Amino acid sequence: MDANPVLAETTRGNWIENRHRGAFAVVDANGTVIASAGDIDFPIFPRSAIKSMQALAIFGSDAIGEFHHSPQELALACASHHGEEPHVEGVAHLLERLGLSVDDLECGAHPPTNPAARDALRQAGLKPTALHNNCSGKHGGMLSVGLAMGVATKGYVEREHAVQRAVREAIEMVIGEPLSEERCGTDGCSIPTFAAPLRAFARGFAVMATGRGLPPDMAAGARQLFDAATQYPLLVAGTGHADTRIMSAFGGRVMQKIGAEGVQCGAIRDKGWGYALKCDDGNMAASQSMLAGLLLNYSDPEADELAVLQSIANRPINSVRGAQVGWLRPAGPLA
Amino acid sequence: MDANPVLAETTRGNWIENRHRGAFAVVDANGTVIASAGDIDFPIFPRSAIKSMQALAIFGSDAIGEFHHSPQELALACASHHGEEPHVEGVAHLLERLGLSVDDLECGAHPPTNPAARDALRQAGLKPTALHNNCSGKHGGMLSVGLAMGVATKGYVEREHAVQRAVREAIEMVIGEPLSEERCGTDGCSIPTFAAPLRAFARGFAVMATGRGLPPDMAAGARQLFDAATQYPLLVAGTGHADTRIMSAFGGRVMQKIGAEGVQCGAIRDKGWGYALKCDDGNMAASQSMLAGLLLNYSDPEADELAVLQSIANRPINSVRGAQVGWLRPAGPLA
Repeated sequence: MDANPVLAETTRGNWIENRHRGAFAVVDANGTVIASAGDIDFPIFPRSAIKSMQALAIFGSDAIGEFHHSPQELALACASHHGEEPHVEGVAHLLERLGLSVDDLECGAHPPTNPAARDALRQAGLKPTALHNNCSGKHGGMLSVGLAMGVATKGYVEREHAVQRAVREAIEMVIGEPLSEERCGTDGCSIPTFAAPLRAFARGFAVMATGRGLPPDMAAGARQLFDAATQYPLLVAGTGHADTRIMSAFGGRVMQKIGAEGVQCGAIRDKGWGYALKCDDGNMAASQSMLAGLLLNYSDPEADELAVLQSIANRPINSVRGAQVGWLRPAGPLA
Repeated sequence: MDANPVLAETTRGNWIENRHRGAFAVVDANGTVIASAGDIDFPIFPRSAIKSMQALAIFGSDAIGEFHHSPQELALACASHHGEEPHVEGVAHLLERLGLSVDDLECGAHPPTNPAARDALRQAGLKPTALHNNCSGKHGGMLSVGLAMGVATKGYVEREHAVQRAVREAIEMVIGEPLSEERCGTDGCSIPTFAAPLRAFARGFAVMATGRGLPPDMAAGARQLFDAATQYPLLVAGTGHADTRIMSAFGGRVMQKIGAEGVQCGAIRDKGWGYALKCDDGNMAASQSMLAGLLLNYSDPEADELAVLQSIANRPINSVRGAQVGWLRPAGPLA
């Protein structure tokens, strides 16, 4: 297999230190490739980057009709949140509305991603719960799907559970191709993750952004999810995170979502384009630099947007004493 | 430039998630390449992997004759230590012997790498000092070089300071080629780091392991440094670290040192071979998997050594709930 191109690199002094390869695709809802680099037909694990696709099951199952999720709850369903107060309280409130509790979440517990929230929890002598898990909002949404379907929610993270079958159908509907057990793993939060070509995920985001080819209720659901995520960007990630900063700057024009191990997916909504990007080695900072490079090249950023993208694209590397000694920056076709 | 081969990969379920490319060289003291993959002539920053080469300046400057560094102090001079008690106390004691204090260290302060040491410091309400910096032992050694040379030690981290010129000469002597300001950056601990071909660093470790071509005092110094590092492997890294585990298992037969951004260097001493390895993307865990793959292939490991190497080569990837969901493992020519 040919190597993907270098899409980001780090320098130290006057020489290159690290090279990060990857592939990306910008695709419209018909599947026309607007731009790409690398092997966009190689199946990659999308991880958390497609939480908005998974959240479509809330509409497919009519959980939305039964529980009337607020925009904030929809944003949290799309989120890899940082365990800050609005995240934890938002998910706790949803569970309460569903008649469930933290014990019904099957994502596991990890400390908040946000350093201040993590320190505050530790200083209060409290242990993290499943509410602090960055995926708790998605799991809350999945529990609402199970309730709406009238099935027992226990084991809702398992691949053969009705909830995960509904989630899988929602993804397959928007990416336009079947997922396969032959390219399947378990995500950090215990639900299945299926690998599929980068090209298909990019197209899926274009489909969600435009509604093209979707039944009317699903098209409306996709629009509601993207509206919610872009209206509440803090809920989708956290204070200072690239996704939050990008969506805040673009004011609804860009829906952007990170996924573990160097995945970035989203939509340039006013153009009707979806995009997907994977850093081959899984480096998150490099994938953010690549993402910013992608948006600099293809989103026609205005001044405010440009400033945010440039600060994410070009990240200083500092010594322990705080002197700047290098750069992480987009490279090759994303330079 | 051609891509280096994939030397480590991660899987999730039944599919590949990440691919880590790199290059490695196993070389003897004459420069004969025993084994290699990728572009071994591309200059890479060795970072902390060559602290033992830098520590040779202790012998070149005759600081050893003036201060009689103990084996533990020599091991700490070669170390990226984890800020545990023996590390911090060892460096503090050396500084006291030199008539200096923590204020003379110019490496900057960061929290201990060892989680228990980090927590203990925080719980005691104390801030980390330059003694906790993983490079403090190297800096202590460099301060001794400055004192032995009779120069003012202030600014000893700067490229043109007499101490760094002596360190540079020591490196050039063992790798057998000049370093260049045109491929130079600043390391995390503020000293210069020069890029040079992987092949040259591998040969340099073979030269240090055998003494071949070195003046007798430098050959003896190299032997003392490798003896010290392999006799006190806990001082060179820390509790549970791969370097410490490998050197403990091999009982003096392998000198192994990690460097930031995916570098691994060392010597298979009984064979007289040096090796150097760089993971292109700087991933440390992947570089350790590659390193273990290299030693599995070229060090003729016995049963105990084999068990340690296999546990470092193949690292489970777990979900938040602790279920094993994938593997990091050597790939391609290191599989």
